[in-house]
Amino acid sequence: MKSNSAYAELCQVHLRLHRFGHVASIVSWDRNAMMPPAGNHARAEAEAELGALIHRLRTDAKLAGWLRAAADEDLNDFERANLREMQRDWRHANALPEALVEAKSLAGAKCEHAWRTQRAANDWSGFLENFRPVLKLAREEAQLLAADSGLSRYDALVDLYEPGMRGAELERIFAEIKTWLPDLVIRVAARQVNEKVVMPTGPFPIVNQRALCQDVMRLLDFNFDAGRLDESAHPFSGGVPEDVRLTTRYRADEFVQSLMGTIHETGHARFEQNLPREWLGMPIGQARSFGVHESQSLSYEMQLARSRGFIGLLAPMVARHLGDQPAFEAGNLHRLMTRVKPGFIRVEADEVTYPAHIILRFEIERALIEGEIEAEDIPALWAEKMQSLLGVDTAGNYTNGCMQDVHWTDGSFGYFPSYTLGAMYAAQWFATIRRAVPDLDTHIANGDFSPVFSWLRENIWLQASRWETAELAIRASGEPLNPIHLRRHLEQRYLG
Amino acid sequence: MKSNSAYAELCQVHLRLHRFGHVASIVSWDRNAMMPPAGNHARAEAEAELGALIHRLRTDAKLAGWLRAAADEDLNDFERANLREMQRDWRHANALPEALVEAKSLAGAKCEHAWRTQRAANDWSGFLENFRPVLKLAREEAQLLAADSGLSRYDALVDLYEPGMRGAELERIFAEIKTWLPDLVIRVAARQVNEKVVMPTGPFPIVNQRALCQDVMRLLDFNFDAGRLDESAHPFSGGVPEDVRLTTRYRADEFVQSLMGTIHETGHARFEQNLPREWLGMPIGQARSFGVHESQSLSYEMQLARSRGFIGLLAPMVARHLGDQPAFEAGNLHRLMTRVKPGFIRVEADEVTYPAHIILRFEIERALIEGEIEAEDIPALWAEKMQSLLGVDTAGNYTNGCMQDVHWTDGSFGYFPSYTLGAMYAAQWFATIRRAVPDLDTHIANGDFSPVFSWLRENIWLQASRWETAELAIRASGEPLNPIHLRRHLEQRYLG
Repeated sequence: MKSNSAYAELCQVHLRLHRFGHVASIVSWDRNAMMPPAGNHARAEAEAELGALIHRLRTDAKLAGWLRAAADEDLNDFERANLREMQRDWRHANALPEALVEAKSLAGAKCEHAWRTQRAANDWSGFLENFRPVLKLAREEAQLLAADSGLSRYDALVDLYEPGMRGAELERIFAEIKTWLPDLVIRVAARQVNEKVVMPTGPFPIVNQRALCQDVMRLLDFNFDAGRLDESAHPFSGGVPEDVRLTTRYRADEFVQSLMGTIHETGHARFEQNLPREWLGMPIGQARSFGVHESQSLSYEMQLARSRGFIGLLAPMVARHLGDQPAFEAGNLHRLMTRVKPGFIRVEADEVTYPAHIILRFEIERALIEGEIEAEDIPALWAEKMQSLLGVDTAGNYTNGCMQDVHWTDGSFGYFPSYTLGAMYAAQWFATIRRAVPDLDTHIANGDFSPVFSWLRENIWLQASRWETAELAIRASGEPLNPIHLRRHLEQRYLG
Repeated sequence: MKSNSAYAELCQVHLRLHRFGHVASIVSWDRNAMMPPAGNHARAEAEAELGALIHRLRTDAKLAGWLRAAADEDLNDFERANLREMQRDWRHANALPEALVEAKSLAGAKCEHAWRTQRAANDWSGFLENFRPVLKLAREEAQLLAADSGLSRYDALVDLYEPGMRGAELERIFAEIKTWLPDLVIRVAARQVNEKVVMPTGPFPIVNQRALCQDVMRLLDFNFDAGRLDESAHPFSGGVPEDVRLTTRYRADEFVQSLMGTIHETGHARFEQNLPREWLGMPIGQARSFGVHESQSLSYEMQLARSRGFIGLLAPMVARHLGDQPAFEAGNLHRLMTRVKPGFIRVEADEVTYPAHIILRFEIERALIEGEIEAEDIPALWAEKMQSLLGVDTAGNYTNGCMQDVHWTDGSFGYFPSYTLGAMYAAQWFATIRRAVPDLDTHIANGDFSPVFSWLRENIWLQASRWETAELAIRASGEPLNPIHLRRHLEQRYLG
């Protein structure tokens, strides 16, 4: 590669994008975790100005020529993979006219803002008024992305979050899951019905919860020299790979949600903290897809942290920070943290019922985007699917039914499948690790997580965006995505 | 003003600069107050990229034409003042070739970095090696700024911090101060020698100090909806006018420094929080000069917070947060906080001896920049001036002598006078307020600071950069800068 090649020019642009992206990430973290309320207006203007600059860089007409020229240059495999990611970024940045992006952003902001009060008021018809324009613009977006990529409309949206994944493939996988999931939920519930679980008694002082979370993050090798844990209304993993900013939120009457949420975000963070340093700044150096990212948070939160061995380590830490009580006995804590119960709310769901929440959303949003149903049809479909998948009745309950999530309010259709893709990948990674290390549970129970962390480092973290997701899965685990591993994991943990 | 006028174009550019400046301020605050150490390298690159962008905007060749054209447009007084500030910004941004800016920045960073260890090691000759190139580049900078502005070399540097101020004027003022200051120091010391001061006994838990500082900030009307107090190695007032970020640092064995430091920064913050909202984004909306800014921090820290009335309010707050002890009796706390003692260190100096530290630095740095002395001459001059001004012997003590400050290490010559300009202006503002409100001390003792805050708001905060500094002083206090007010204040407080 010559230093004045088109490829080199592209690298220069992406390095600048990376640096402006660093600044954008930090101020966004600050807005969510630090900024006092009166700072909001000036911050919105400043972030918009920076966002516009980044958009101009990503859509600079010169890039088109360089991308064409670079394709004919003498690149090695690595550079060619980097170019593939650059092309993907260019396509996404340029597929949509700015007027549509702006209109969707405005309609989404309006709908989301009103939703915050409408949800609590169970006001579906009020919501519908704002949601219709959001859906209309999302369909236009899907249409344009589809025209650009040759994909179907819904596929074109999924591709934004999970490159290479298609609606038909999701349908096939989810159909397979639907054959066993409802029955599994019933069998697990029957088995747990007579289990005795002692509930923890609060309050749990927030200063102690904070120290507990930080201790558990250290146990999980989070590098506090290259990151922080703070608080925000909606927990997230932000910042930059060199300086990862996690947040959680605490409630004095409950500690499991913030603790397991912190472990979840720590999984995201460890991916970022272990991305290959020499690729940082290039598109190839970024974490692979939302589903793969979620496979890391769920490897931590579900595969590792809810295992019997890990909870055996966790129990004395909980007792040390929150004061001992019968509920903190390891066996009881394990029962508490693996409790399965069909419920209304996705974000509160256990790992067994969780896929049902996603399958329902996938089926509805795909039909919405493909124009097979209209916004008015959502509540009836929601009630019907909740009944058939989880056996719960949500009819008329919009608050905890079809109005519970933020995703659709701003038009983020195609995102939901990533959650269950992540759960399936996480199970697939752990099945692979178990094949190599049959006594993995003994290692974990002894506090030796190195078989897990070494495998994730080699096979996921250090691969970044080197491979397309399907190839990443094959190289890591010997096969493409296979939902059998999630099924086996759930049956093993909950019926084993 | 027509919307397609050259003036309107300039406003657009400055609005963008303001927004990018917002982002730059927040990430800079983050680096100092939040960033974990491993984030440094990536952050430096990201901030440099943003800095380069801002520099390109400020030096865009189009601005030169617009500035010329705008001067002939039909502008009102306000717009003309805004244009004056835009021209000043343009001149400063364009007077120096980028190679010199970069060379000075590199030489300064190297000298400052080494200074951090050399200072502790009393290593003057090691320091000199790095300092000579810094001085050489600062002289080049001064030469170029002088050629551009028609000012003398030192004046051209002072003008960066204190527009309109000249070396000859500083010399006249400082000569005046020198006629009475050494004698005043001796008289105050003689008077205080038999005063009994009970020293506070630590430790003072940092969590309590933090709560005390926040309470005192509330007492001083700091708006926590539009700002924060955090911690950093070197306390500063940062952020943006809409979201002011103060920092302090705590030591468990001492509380007065962090408390008075916080009050000092609160003065800076209240200026920023009360800049006229309708001008924000324009150069005219920015705080006027370093000296005027320092007049606000010193109005708070020295004029207000070390007054007998204010300390009467402070004493029970200190006792409430840190536990009662004899040292916290109001009279004792006042004696403690108004103790005068000539010492080596500027940043630890009381308000009586402080001007001597500044006069010494002014005389040396002016001669350095004008080429009358060389770097080698500093120690002897330092020792001689410390002896004559404060009667203390610093010969051979570089650590707490001429190597104590960071300013010269990176070539910030011309900055030091701002501190004493601030002290003089603060005394002048309070003399004006006292003329209008003769029983000001009663108001303060009763916790009614409105005469002070209303006056500062009307005469300083809301004026922003509307007037050049000399006119600001005349409009606010009826006369230009007059050092008699500082003298009267010190004599009144320390000998009255």
